[in-house]
Amino acid sequence: MQSPKVFETPSESSSHLAAHHLSTWQDDENSHPVWPRPEGQRMQKVLNPMATARPRMNFLNPNEKVMGSVLLNDSKAAMRSHALDGGGIRGNACKFIWWEPNTVKAALVTCGGLCPGLNSIIQGVTNCLWRDYGVRQIIGVTAGYNGLTNPSENEWIELNPELVSEIHMKGGSVLKAGRGGFDASAICDTLRAHGINMLFVIGGDGTQFAGHLLYEEARKRKLDVSIVGVPKSIDNDVLFVDKTFGFDSAVEAAAGVIRNGWVEATSCAKAVSIVKLMGRDAGFVAAHASLASNLVDLCLVPEVDVELDDIFSYVDATLERKGHMVIVVAEGAGQRHVSTGKKDASGHTVYGDVGVFLRDTLNKYLKAKGGRTFYIDPSYIIRSVPITPNDHIYCARLANNAVHTAMRGNTGVCVGAVHNIIIILKSKLIASGKKQLKIKSSTWQTCVQNCTMPDKLSGMHQADQKGYAQAE
Amino acid sequence: MQSPKVFETPSESSSHLAAHHLSTWQDDENSHPVWPRPEGQRMQKVLNPMATARPRMNFLNPNEKVMGSVLLNDSKAAMRSHALDGGGIRGNACKFIWWEPNTVKAALVTCGGLCPGLNSIIQGVTNCLWRDYGVRQIIGVTAGYNGLTNPSENEWIELNPELVSEIHMKGGSVLKAGRGGFDASAICDTLRAHGINMLFVIGGDGTQFAGHLLYEEARKRKLDVSIVGVPKSIDNDVLFVDKTFGFDSAVEAAAGVIRNGWVEATSCAKAVSIVKLMGRDAGFVAAHASLASNLVDLCLVPEVDVELDDIFSYVDATLERKGHMVIVVAEGAGQRHVSTGKKDASGHTVYGDVGVFLRDTLNKYLKAKGGRTFYIDPSYIIRSVPITPNDHIYCARLANNAVHTAMRGNTGVCVGAVHNIIIILKSKLIASGKKQLKIKSSTWQTCVQNCTMPDKLSGMHQADQKGYAQAE
Amino acid sequence: MQSPKVFETPSESSSHLAAHHLSTWQDDENSHPVWPRPEGQRMQKVLNPMATARPRMNFLNPNEKVMGSVLLNDSKAAMRSHALDGGGIRGNACKFIWWEPNTVKAALVTCGGLCPGLNSIIQGVTNCLWRDYGVRQIIGVTAGYNGLTNPSENEWIELNPELVSEIHMKGGSVLKAGRGGFDASAICDTLRAHGINMLFVIGGDGTQFAGHLLYEEARKRKLDVSIVGVPKSIDNDVLFVDKTFGFDSAVEAAAGVIRNGWVEATSCAKAVSIVKLMGRDAGFVAAHASLASNLVDLCLVPEVDVELDDIFSYVDATLERKGHMVIVVAEGAGQRHVSTGKKDASGHTVYGDVGVFLRDTLNKYLKAKGGRTFYIDPSYIIRSVPITPNDHIYCARLANNAVHTAMRGNTGVCVGAVHNIIIILKSKLIASGKKQLKIKSSTWQTCVQNCTMPDKLSGMHQADQKGYAQAE
Amino acid sequence: MQSPKVFETPSESSSHLAAHHLSTWQDDENSHPVWPRPEGQRMQKVLNPMATARPRMNFLNPNEKVMGSVLLNDSKAAMRSHALDGGGIRGNACKFIWWEPNTVKAALVTCGGLCPGLNSIIQGVTNCLWRDYGVRQIIGVTAGYNGLTNPSENEWIELNPELVSEIHMKGGSVLKAGRGGFDASAICDTLRAHGINMLFVIGGDGTQFAGHLLYEEARKRKLDVSIVGVPKSIDNDVLFVDKTFGFDSAVEAAAGVIRNGWVEATSCAKAVSIVKLMGRDAGFVAAHASLASNLVDLCLVPEVDVELDDIFSYVDATLERKGHMVIVVAEGAGQRHVSTGKKDASGHTVYGDVGVFLRDTLNKYLKAKGGRTFYIDPSYIIRSVPITPNDHIYCARLANNAVHTAMRGNTGVCVGAVHNIIIILKSKLIASGKKQLKIKSSTWQTCVQNCTMPDKLSGMHQADQKGYAQAE
Repeated sequence: MQSPKVFETPSESSSHLAAHHLSTWQDDENSHPVWPRPEGQRMQKVLNPMATARPRMNFLNPNEKVMGSVLLNDSKAAMRSHALDGGGIRGNACKFIWWEPNTVKAALVTCGGLCPGLNSIIQGVTNCLWRDYGVRQIIGVTAGYNGLTNPSENEWIELNPELVSEIHMKGGSVLKAGRGGFDASAICDTLRAHGINMLFVIGGDGTQFAGHLLYEEARKRKLDVSIVGVPKSIDNDVLFVDKTFGFDSAVEAAAGVIRNGWVEATSCAKAVSIVKLMGRDAGFVAAHASLASNLVDLCLVPEVDVELDDIFSYVDATLERKGHMVIVVAEGAGQRHVSTGKKDASGHTVYGDVGVFLRDTLNKYLKAKGGRTFYIDPSYIIRSVPITPNDHIYCARLANNAVHTAMRGNTGVCVGAVHNIIIILKSKLIASGKKQLKIKSSTWQTCVQNCTMPDKLSGMHQADQKGYAQAE
Repeated sequence: MQSPKVFETPSESSSHLAAHHLSTWQDDENSHPVWPRPEGQRMQKVLNPMATARPRMNFLNPNEKVMGSVLLNDSKAAMRSHALDGGGIRGNACKFIWWEPNTVKAALVTCGGLCPGLNSIIQGVTNCLWRDYGVRQIIGVTAGYNGLTNPSENEWIELNPELVSEIHMKGGSVLKAGRGGFDASAICDTLRAHGINMLFVIGGDGTQFAGHLLYEEARKRKLDVSIVGVPKSIDNDVLFVDKTFGFDSAVEAAAGVIRNGWVEATSCAKAVSIVKLMGRDAGFVAAHASLASNLVDLCLVPEVDVELDDIFSYVDATLERKGHMVIVVAEGAGQRHVSTGKKDASGHTVYGDVGVFLRDTLNKYLKAKGGRTFYIDPSYIIRSVPITPNDHIYCARLANNAVHTAMRGNTGVCVGAVHNIIIILKSKLIASGKKQLKIKSSTWQTCVQNCTMPDKLSGMHQADQKGYAQAE
Repeated sequence: MQSPKVFETPSESSSHLAAHHLSTWQDDENSHPVWPRPEGQRMQKVLNPMATARPRMNFLNPNEKVMGSVLLNDSKAAMRSHALDGGGIRGNACKFIWWEPNTVKAALVTCGGLCPGLNSIIQGVTNCLWRDYGVRQIIGVTAGYNGLTNPSENEWIELNPELVSEIHMKGGSVLKAGRGGFDASAICDTLRAHGINMLFVIGGDGTQFAGHLLYEEARKRKLDVSIVGVPKSIDNDVLFVDKTFGFDSAVEAAAGVIRNGWVEATSCAKAVSIVKLMGRDAGFVAAHASLASNLVDLCLVPEVDVELDDIFSYVDATLERKGHMVIVVAEGAGQRHVSTGKKDASGHTVYGDVGVFLRDTLNKYLKAKGGRTFYIDPSYIIRSVPITPNDHIYCARLANNAVHTAMRGNTGVCVGAVHNIIIILKSKLIASGKKQLKIKSSTWQTCVQNCTMPDKLSGMHQADQKGYAQAE
Repeated sequence: MQSPKVFETPSESSSHLAAHHLSTWQDDENSHPVWPRPEGQRMQKVLNPMATARPRMNFLNPNEKVMGSVLLNDSKAAMRSHALDGGGIRGNACKFIWWEPNTVKAALVTCGGLCPGLNSIIQGVTNCLWRDYGVRQIIGVTAGYNGLTNPSENEWIELNPELVSEIHMKGGSVLKAGRGGFDASAICDTLRAHGINMLFVIGGDGTQFAGHLLYEEARKRKLDVSIVGVPKSIDNDVLFVDKTFGFDSAVEAAAGVIRNGWVEATSCAKAVSIVKLMGRDAGFVAAHASLASNLVDLCLVPEVDVELDDIFSYVDATLERKGHMVIVVAEGAGQRHVSTGKKDASGHTVYGDVGVFLRDTLNKYLKAKGGRTFYIDPSYIIRSVPITPNDHIYCARLANNAVHTAMRGNTGVCVGAVHNIIIILKSKLIASGKKQLKIKSSTWQTCVQNCTMPDKLSGMHQADQKGYAQAE
């Protein structure tokens, strides 16, 4: 499913989540065992079993919020999104929760393509449910939403700590990723039929938008289910959050491939290495990997429109100056030059292969000058890498807080880091668009200077962008 | 040099840096060429050459600040440090700077032991000075402060982009690390004699405290020199900043070694693998590497005092349950059990080897039960690893902003990330103590649960700590 | 169990294995179904099921031999061992085998400490038995010989291709290594009781000597069991064979650690890095890792006796010349200087820690000169690494041929590579001593020159050695 | 330059190299200083300086030979090549050499594409010449033969140990690889003009054939120059030698990529991962990487002709059985299906892209069944990897022995390992064809069984091949 691509600021915020709590659709307040009653509302009524197991543990004030902006005298104030101006509710374990853990039956579904860290998320959700809350019914749904829409055709896996204990050391997903297959009504039927009252949804903006639709359907039906998403995007193009899980691992792998390209370029006269990286709409992987490798001369991203002649001039100048050159190109860059005019079944534009185009165009251009290109398209080599240790910690934090959030009774929400603190965001908000690299952000400006790219290739001549997030 | 270890909140803040700007000790306002004059003060008077080179580049509002706290309804408010309550001045390139770049002669010194990322910092400072500001006199001082106190005995290296272009791919430091040798007066003489007016100081809290003393000496002498530090600590025990450079690389390497220990433990009956990691006063490396590897049963850190009998009981229970066990121990943990009673030349306590102690104690304890330990002390294997790609980006950000800060005319300050934004902090503040792992932080509590450690080994029974930083 | 250390040439050869075939102790030639009868003898009577499955497959001439020496005009002829002068029977699949596969019940035992490749051997033996011969009873014995002597105390594992399909990607041993516990009589009882007629023994020279004793006991009892060993030694000190499995992986890991030491040494003034590597009696790991890293100045091995004063002089000279130094020391080197005078329970000499001795001795020596050491003891970090891809191929070849050899009805033998071809060697021969690095071999002489070690530290002044193998 | 592809056994051998020694074209035996004169011939007349530096060093008997065959009762005797029946002269340092080292001016040229280990060879040749023989004039020629044919257009580099000390840790070639540009006459002019009397030629069969032509030209002109080749082929398709340098590194890298493909395949329903690997005419990389990874279901190599329908059937069966599949395809496999009918400038057939063909063909075939492919073409990622430690040792051995061989006065020859001993082979012999994977070799048969490939895809139904080398 494709999210409605609104590259602007949404009208909603995440500073109040009342509508996203199961208590709001309860007619009968006794439908859940209530103890001890907080003043004037029915939230957080069950004592967290961790409070019994570890009496001196620190629990979060459930109303703790994280501010959206942390800047004073902000030089980019006019360009920023206001969606988080009211702050966001902090995730984390609370002393009183909504669900009686022994009544919980949880399910977990991973949608879309591979991204490093899926197994870490699966492991983290399983461990937190089992170990911290004592939940013993945890279902791994295979093949994405298909597995919920048509459970009879896609076998489910019973998850437990033993089964997931070593999976974080391997790339991929033990639940097998799957695209499409979303049907809110059929899925609600499945959830009710199997008594599933907690659903963890790992996937991109489309998946989270589907999560939102599912929340709406459940709400309509008064079907008590906590639907909590963990946004996934190897491109790092999820709105509002600091970064997506797996992004750092992808950058690390991509930087390694750039190094390969650089070795090739420096080992042949007049050689231009071209490395195609992920990034359909956003150049984060390309820009970060360029910065990380410190070996790149030109970084082409979807956000910056460039002319071929400007590339040619810069290639000439770079070969003249250094004798070799390294170009990184995001898959979504320069689509104007390679447009296919096609859409795939789910409505996504079919992109032309800008890497191959650049290879062929430059080979032709360089032939007379005695130069040539070396083209590398690492593709699945990057998508399938094991998560890096630090990125695994991030996955585990997201997974734990997704569980804590579901246990609190929230639904129709996602978890994500803002200022490196995990907050709870409405899935609708997450799904309202895609994040892009900002031309005037430090990241891009540093990338431009690091590559010593000329202004014409830097995008700095383009019009100002709106919608800057917290501290770009 | 050892910093004054005050593990409490200092009285100073970094929200105003007037005293830490070269303009404040100018008697003659014409001593620097001034253009265009900002209202009522002499700061930021030279046009940044980047503004000419890239006219559409975005520059920072020089008064932009980052808030210290980003939480509302903060559950740990009473325990937090207030040092950053006034916020911190954001680092970054400004349109108007203090120094005329062609008058700048910069020097860079790296002090203390090895830490991943030193070469990235050296490269970043060199590149930013040379490429962005056009500075052509950049000196690499060898052997730490010794090289400034006794320049005749320690050869200096002329740094330039060509020389540093590939050094980030290698661990260690091309400037050779060096301990001791600090003499504020002698160093001021050296700076004056060689016309050095910009000094970058990379090192730990002791090094930054020395940087503060140097700043005071220069101020007393009205010696115009911008002294800017980049705090270094592989232990990650630097106050106020999110994390130190090189820390993530150390954690990644440490997690790999833990995996080795786990392989050993799982390949022998009743085996206990013990991995000793860095951490004299703070258990960050131990805790993060434990979380990252997800294979650890017991994590011992300096912040938590434990009894041997509690360890024995837990070892018995773990071997009974799983048949093997992995213990991570920070070098500064359990010093009560291995006290040497000695101090080294610079006044640091000589620590007993808790790893060897634990190995021998457990071997003795387990012998009768048919068990044994496998001990790994990776030591310099971790200190010497190349920086990881993402950590390199962080190093480059710190290096760039150290240069921008010096160019603005600030002095006696360090750069560091707060809420993932680089700010300028007084060196005195950085040197006022050491950060420690907080028992009630999410990091430690998650580590305790992840390892399934019993309460007695978790420290949760210990008294509450004060001095929590921004968002622990 | 310790092998009888005879560092000389044994009187036996492996060119005839009649006594090591199960046919030789058959009184009743009908005790095995015989078809089709080869002329005049009872060997190779069952059609290999592979011949049916793959009719055009190439099978080995069962009498194919590999020559011991491949040199003409051999300059070291007088120094060589003559044990393989008669050549060795080549291993590999034969068209006719001894065992009816559906009557085979196989067991596999791994003894001694960890070595890279154990899981590859376990996987290879399992896969070849199951997939190529259709054997369906394959037992993994845990805890080494203990698991056969006392099966009631050490649970066995049923092995099959599914179970072992991914284990080669992980270090260690899924069967858990185990020392001691050998009792030939009790093991024969176990084999008979459980109907085990094929036993694969992975372990060092002591383990293979025990395998030989077991063969003798079985022969005495006329207990039909094919006992086939795969010699294991991370030190590579197994007589006659080109190299042991896991050795290349250990060298690769060791070379990486040496690089760490070199980074440290080059990042500090007057620094001497010391890396202790495996090698109780033989310096193969130390020498190969020194050659592989190309960063070592001094390589100390058990085979060469050196004086401390000669080390001191060379350290001085090297620091004077380069400013830093890297020393590699095998754990068994210089034992004269660190003798403990102790023996362990199984009779092995307890070695003094030459690495710590060298560290302390050099630190003391260098202190006055302003130098210092950095000491790295990677220990289990190397033993636990996953096998490298090429080494895995070698493991799989050994495992396959161990199975083929057992299927042919041989017993009391090992498999090993000579001139890179797998041959069958009597276990008694393998256990007759330990291989050492030869002073006049190309390997050592190249190592000496590569490190530019002075003659006094090279051992070239020592008396000539005897017992050179095939082509050293 | 393309070698004459004769896939049969050449008429020449390497057991006598008289014609390949500089003494044979000397009219005036006093043209070289002779001391001490060996009986009856002019070879080996100068005392090796190593004999003075290390008096107890072991030198090789210059007539030592390595036998071609080491098998008795060889089951494949009829299929083997007889080129090495007379054995090969062993390489290595001799006590008496031909060249007076202080008169030597050496040059080194690397031709063709990148291959791991080039820098190790450059380093090894430089170090051995400089350190062991005291040669001080060592020229690194850039851009392959172009640099010798047109030295004015391709700058030469002066090589010395300092310059090459760290290059083995990096992939690529510091001399930049280069194709074409061979002109025997022009090169002889260049050698004479610059006084170069020793030339090391690193490159494939075409490069070595050119080396042979150069030898003939020099011989005709009586130009004293020792031309010694080190055969290079990442495909490992060099005749007669055990394996090429860099091959193991390529296999290791390829096995890693296969693992990526396997992760992808196992993380998606009905997924077929396709990994394209090197191998224009020979499937060694594909087969070895398949064996090394142990994760492959189908390995397609140039030596085996297969039908698409057989692939389809096997894909169906494999997906049915396992749910996923991994295919490895060598770039030269299945060219019948993708023939371009084109030749490039140097006469090489332009190959169709069998990887892309297979991807598209299978995607089309699988679409209706709900399956799909994941395609990985690692290309330059493999060519640019740093050499592995063990492979570096092999490179250093080849490099050292190339120097020893040149110092002995041989010319028009290559060095290569046979039975893991370095011998000297005529370049003409090396260039007489290309090695291919043999269908009946253990390597391929084991690969077929390991992948459980059906007979029709295994090639076992094809006619028998001739030309087996030593011990395949």
